Amino acid sequence: MENFEVTPYEVSGDVDYNKLAKRFGISHIDDKLRERIFRLAGEPNFLISRGIYFAHRDMQWLLDKYEHGEKFYVYTGIAPSGSMHIAHLLPFTLAKWLQDRFDADVYVQVPYEEKFLVRKNKSLEELRELAMDDVRNIAALGFKPEKTRFFFDIENANFMYRQAVRVARHITFSTIKDAFGFTNETNIGAIFYTSMQTVGSFIKSVEDNKNVPCVIPMGVDQDVHFRIARDVVEKLGYYKPASLENIFMPGLKGQQKMSASDPDNTIYLNDDRKTVERKANMALTGQQATAELQRKYGGDPDKCAVCQYYRFFFEPDDKKLEKIFEAERKGTMLAGEHKKHFADTVNKFLEEHRKKKERVDIQKFLMKTNS
Amino acid sequence: MENFEVTPYEVSGDVDYNKLAKRFGISHIDDKLRERIFRLAGEPNFLISRGIYFAHRDMQWLLDKYEHGEKFYVYTGIAPSGSMHIAHLLPFTLAKWLQDRFDADVYVQVPYEEKFLVRKNKSLEELRELAMDDVRNIAALGFKPEKTRFFFDIENANFMYRQAVRVARHITFSTIKDAFGFTNETNIGAIFYTSMQTVGSFIKSVEDNKNVPCVIPMGVDQDVHFRIARDVVEKLGYYKPASLENIFMPGLKGQQKMSASDPDNTIYLNDDRKTVERKANMALTGQQATAELQRKYGGDPDKCAVCQYYRFFFEPDDKKLEKIFEAERKGTMLAGEHKKHFADTVNKFLEEHRKKKERVDIQKFLMKTNS
Repeated sequence: MENFEVTPYEVSGDVDYNKLAKRFGISHIDDKLRERIFRLAGEPNFLISRGIYFAHRDMQWLLDKYEHGEKFYVYTGIAPSGSMHIAHLLPFTLAKWLQDRFDADVYVQVPYEEKFLVRKNKSLEELRELAMDDVRNIAALGFKPEKTRFFFDIENANFMYRQAVRVARHITFSTIKDAFGFTNETNIGAIFYTSMQTVGSFIKSVEDNKNVPCVIPMGVDQDVHFRIARDVVEKLGYYKPASLENIFMPGLKGQQKMSASDPDNTIYLNDDRKTVERKANMALTGQQATAELQRKYGGDPDKCAVCQYYRFFFEPDDKKLEKIFEAERKGTMLAGEHKKHFADTVNKFLEEHRKKKERVDIQKFLMKTNS
Repeated sequence: MENFEVTPYEVSGDVDYNKLAKRFGISHIDDKLRERIFRLAGEPNFLISRGIYFAHRDMQWLLDKYEHGEKFYVYTGIAPSGSMHIAHLLPFTLAKWLQDRFDADVYVQVPYEEKFLVRKNKSLEELRELAMDDVRNIAALGFKPEKTRFFFDIENANFMYRQAVRVARHITFSTIKDAFGFTNETNIGAIFYTSMQTVGSFIKSVEDNKNVPCVIPMGVDQDVHFRIARDVVEKLGYYKPASLENIFMPGLKGQQKMSASDPDNTIYLNDDRKTVERKANMALTGQQATAELQRKYGGDPDKCAVCQYYRFFFEPDDKKLEKIFEAERKGTMLAGEHKKHFADTVNKFLEEHRKKKERVDIQKFLMKTNS
């Protein structure tokens, strides 16, 4: 047995992404696919070119369809649990790019009952508040209201439950138990939940009453939902969804995955200036123990959480990123300056983001369903 | 082990209702309770006085509340599977009486996804058609539109799913597995379903935003849903529902329970005259092998399906029922005449029923939910 575990509910051990891809049956994004995506998009994308989106399912098929005139839509989502952090933005950043470059409609699921069922530490009312805040944060990234739909399992249940029932009929408890690490003591809401998450894979095909290709950008920890979904949606007569899957964004302290359990390990979208400065100061860099040693030997950007935050999110420009990396490697930028520059970059982003968020008209983005 | 099984999905063996009551933890309706119900109602009810409704939970508590000014509501339902038959009408007949005599609001759940999930032989569209027909059949019994609400899990899911999620969090797969005889190969929709059926037990408390006592008339095979429901609704802060539970209506051929698998064993609400006559002719009576023996020894009303159909449904008047039973016992009414009289009675009921059904304005009865 490989000694790591990746499910939507648990990431543990030292994740080997090559072994994980094999385990999940997903393919690496190779040069050929990368070039095809960028050629059709008319520009490269840093999340893909840097290997942050490292694996996929059926992307060649999706692009075949696209080239033959069948436009795809993007499905993604977030299960609210607390304030959103930077790692949450990766799939949405890619989704927005796909909307801009491929004219794709984007469907965003905000299943705020999921954490209610699984974690049990917040009320549905609290989680609904968080869900609405998530919608504002995501919409603020610049999605086009006329091509973007946020939907809830609860508020849109008149649509969702019917579709989830069609899904659920094809999934046994055995399948769920193994896939999610559930036991007989898991509650029946958590067991049913993946039926709701599967609906996004064919939601536009139901709305348009014809098969529409779908691509799902997601953290690789969500893959299991769609391994199951792909089997089911085919039985329902829909296209299997393609996917683009990202590696985990490291924690500020260098852990493999940002974790909501240690707030200092993460940048939240509602962190104020002082908090960001404090977190930046505490962040792990790849530098030597002293300034003198750092000037002499240089540091390692791969081990530097600050460098990685630029790579994953804060510095989309490859040339500027390389300058940051080089300064780290050569020892020309010491930790203090590095962290200050980082804090300024983060605070600039967050302040602009919050201004955009203020201007979001949420009603333009919400799916309406009636009885 | 007792060699009979009673779950919503299986009734087998020779049901001993005394042992069943013990097994389920329900109480027999004794003389004292019967008299109290009739006194408060202002009249007796034949379904209760004849022991067809034989058991209950918490009825004394419900009547205490009633006498202290807390009116109760009635929750019942039907999971559509095909055309409705006479046995389906028992809980609705009692519900209408409770509405008339106790001024109770009546909530009727029509969860047409249930058979879709469990039996898998009809589409959701077909089942929805059947559901609408069930609503018409039930409303035709004379419910007051202003005090009656039919609701669907699917069409009213904007309301229902949220409440079902609150329920589901408190029910583990272990509980469901044992209670319903499910296995690991049961689908996750069927597993989740009881969460939806539990909502009826507190639906009016949610709507009124205060605790409202609830009583559920039902076939005893449904009891398990509410054994589970009672635990959960208490955790959610609502009153546990009371219940009134009926024994099974026998089949026309004398089997213990009417079964939809043999259409000749049952009277359907859409049976035409000829069909009713044919079924009546095939029905089991408690009579002797020949007319001569019958005149000499008489028959046994307890073993006569025709007599039992009068007792369960077609002859609410006790004196008239006793005359039918006496004629059977004394051998003064032979099988042919007995069956002809029965066919005429059934056809008269069905024709009047279908006229009432035509006049039902279904829209007045449906719950509306919006997103």
